[in-house]
Amino acid sequence: MTGECQIRVRYAETDRMGLLHHANYLVYFEQARTELLRQMGLTYRDLEDQGFYLVVAKLEVRYKRPAHYDDVLTIRTTVTRSSPVRLEHKYEVFGPDGQLCCEGNTTLACVDGEGKIQPMPEFFSANPDQPSGGARPPLAPPA
Amino acid sequence: MTGECQIRVRYAETDRMGLLHHANYLVYFEQARTELLRQMGLTYRDLEDQGFYLVVAKLEVRYKRPAHYDDVLTIRTTVTRSSPVRLEHKYEVFGPDGQLCCEGNTTLACVDGEGKIQPMPEFFSANPDQPSGGARPPLAPPA
Amino acid sequence: MTGECQIRVRYAETDRMGLLHHANYLVYFEQARTELLRQMGLTYRDLEDQGFYLVVAKLEVRYKRPAHYDDVLTIRTTVTRSSPVRLEHKYEVFGPDGQLCCEGNTTLACVDGEGKIQPMPEFFSANPDQPSGGARPPLAPPA
Amino acid sequence: MTGECQIRVRYAETDRMGLLHHANYLVYFEQARTELLRQMGLTYRDLEDQGFYLVVAKLEVRYKRPAHYDDVLTIRTTVTRSSPVRLEHKYEVFGPDGQLCCEGNTTLACVDGEGKIQPMPEFFSANPDQPSGGARPPLAPPA
Repeated sequence: MTGECQIRVRYAETDRMGLLHHANYLVYFEQARTELLRQMGLTYRDLEDQGFYLVVAKLEVRYKRPAHYDDVLTIRTTVTRSSPVRLEHKYEVFGPDGQLCCEGNTTLACVDGEGKIQPMPEFFSANPDQPSGGARPPLAPPA
Repeated sequence: MTGECQIRVRYAETDRMGLLHHANYLVYFEQARTELLRQMGLTYRDLEDQGFYLVVAKLEVRYKRPAHYDDVLTIRTTVTRSSPVRLEHKYEVFGPDGQLCCEGNTTLACVDGEGKIQPMPEFFSANPDQPSGGARPPLAPPA
Repeated sequence: MTGECQIRVRYAETDRMGLLHHANYLVYFEQARTELLRQMGLTYRDLEDQGFYLVVAKLEVRYKRPAHYDDVLTIRTTVTRSSPVRLEHKYEVFGPDGQLCCEGNTTLACVDGEGKIQPMPEFFSANPDQPSGGARPPLAPPA
Repeated sequence: MTGECQIRVRYAETDRMGLLHHANYLVYFEQARTELLRQMGLTYRDLEDQGFYLVVAKLEVRYKRPAHYDDVLTIRTTVTRSSPVRLEHKYEVFGPDGQLCCEGNTTLACVDGEGKIQPMPEFFSANPDQPSGGARPPLAPPA
């Protein structure tokens, strides 16, 4: 399962170096996997309303090139592994020129309202694991 | 009631201009009024645990001089008005040189867990209104 | 001059109350006035590249109703005053149901790369002042 | 080289789950390594003023337990490797009860004002590499 979304870098998200601050990529990753979920027919808000909270257990990011203020970035998100207790995503962030800015991956666990580990909602186990491919330029140039 | 606290400007809080981004002053105001409450013997966390949620109903900010990365700012916070339904604060933010960077004021209302307006906790009505003074340099130079 | 844009509330922008944190409205205002500028044929990035930095000198916000995670908000932005030294905007933020969540206004000044006040770029003085109207529901319902 | 600093979780840094949002740990890591540098007699601001910009090239985070609003966290930061072109840190974040909330590591590279890779400032190569130890509770309980 792979999807793409576009996010424009906000002024407040840049830092003294004039670039997108590195912590904000995690916010973009989160928005991107939410949009992927929406494409699959589910909203994360509904999941939480049903008592399923997906929390980040682990993440890795590799920064390749800086992103700048007002750039429209393309985030390609892939579900790389889905097990009853774990959901893994891979993210590739491309700049306006189609070059890879940043790539990362996260491992999510599922907890209930008290923070106790519970199995993932059935929705995910119904979708088979997806092998991740290598970084390619975005499917379509961002607007 | 007046108190002071110090906050150091973080890298992630600066923007492309190399200055503290203007939205972050609201985060500093919030931290400053929380610290004032703590000095008065109450934590805002306890208030929420007891079902009192203080929400910002109105605010005003006037920006005078920029604050820079790594500056230790002094925020002086004053309760300027306390009524059964409203709590007003004034904030003055001073740079490392003691000059006024920014001043603001907020009006808080109290809601319950469902977001319905309710009277302020008795703690506040027990503390008489405090007239606000003019901007003065910080009581003590920041460390 | 009036324009509208839509912004979806991100998870990272909510707080312990489960609502959009009040400081993030300023980030939305900033994005909204940037998009209005873009509609007028100018990008704020270009302005900065030409040495014109627009800084917030003053702002006011009145919070009416909470905005929630994943809500698509409509921000209507109006230039309410344009003088050689000042640019004023008004913002109205509407929830998915078309009701007013928040309104605010900002006063911008123009500085150069050293932070010295300078006249606004001619672009703005060429556009006549715009009186501000009262709050109305969004022109079109958000997607 | 190891140091510790304390950071209190701000309201604006929590999210709808009522916990510290996972992206904010990166901001804490950054503040923690800046404070470690300060203890070593150098400020990162000075480094940038001299034309040395340290950028995050890679990072990993493992989240163990949630951190809550108003918690005072202890961040222990260790320089785990220092080479002419790379600086590696390890971070351990402990909650008020001394239990490990989160651990991470970053790899920094050094660039000049144009973003070109350059050798690290001599200061770092003068400090020998430091092996990293296992997670231990904080040296002193947070205030």
